[in-house]
Amino acid sequence: MSGTDDVVTILPVHECWDLMGGVTLGRLVTSVDGQPEIFPVNYAVQNRTVLFRTAEGTKLVSTAINNRVLFEVDDHNVAEGWSVIVKGRARSLRTSEQIEEAERAQLLPWTSTEKTHYVRVIPELVTGRRFRFGPPLLGSRERA
Amino acid sequence: MSGTDDVVTILPVHECWDLMGGVTLGRLVTSVDGQPEIFPVNYAVQNRTVLFRTAEGTKLVSTAINNRVLFEVDDHNVAEGWSVIVKGRARSLRTSEQIEEAERAQLLPWTSTEKTHYVRVIPELVTGRRFRFGPPLLGSRERA
Repeated sequence: MSGTDDVVTILPVHECWDLMGGVTLGRLVTSVDGQPEIFPVNYAVQNRTVLFRTAEGTKLVSTAINNRVLFEVDDHNVAEGWSVIVKGRARSLRTSEQIEEAERAQLLPWTSTEKTHYVRVIPELVTGRRFRFGPPLLGSRERA
Repeated sequence: MSGTDDVVTILPVHECWDLMGGVTLGRLVTSVDGQPEIFPVNYAVQNRTVLFRTAEGTKLVSTAINNRVLFEVDDHNVAEGWSVIVKGRARSLRTSEQIEEAERAQLLPWTSTEKTHYVRVIPELVTGRRFRFGPPLLGSRERA
């Protein structure tokens, strides 16, 4: 593990996956014709890929599938936080073999609305950082 | 408030701002030449704008300023979650008047590294949804 300065640490890839495996809510970012979109989704990590379900025919599907996407996960407490970003490509799972494999992840959707479509993000680049908060963040906070 | 179905509720704009005011970590999404980027930032809400600080000369600044951006905030517990997305334009604060106004937000950066540059996202569209989780999400969860 190497630090970029005293409060931000670059995380090794295995730690990025470990951290992602402990969280269930992430955010898929797509971009089509320069228009970014962001979609919170419930996900699972399976064999160093990101797996989630969505409904067919959604904007998520039309902007994500076969395109380059980002998937971001973060978490924090009062003392520190971390963020992992996966850059990769989103693929629809179509064959019964692909869907059977995905079912083994026991993935649950964020809501109980119908989510019939499995999507897997195949990573090309995984980056993560851990942030240690300075003392001011622990103090009280008022807004104008 | 109108529901799209029994588990997803569209939030009125005032509730979106109320919810955003209770959280301090959000995610800025930019897109340049079809390449999306996502940056977790510590923010404050001020007069229905999103205010945060960053260092000068960063990729965040070069891809965000004067461009259309998204800002996403979400939170969840075991029973429900919500997500608010602000679509708008990011502006650098340069005049002493602008910076004085921003200082009144008592904004604190996520880390204690130097963050000299104020950025304000001026909203064009604010959308929010609340998700009520189905019973399966409360059960145990195993991954393959």
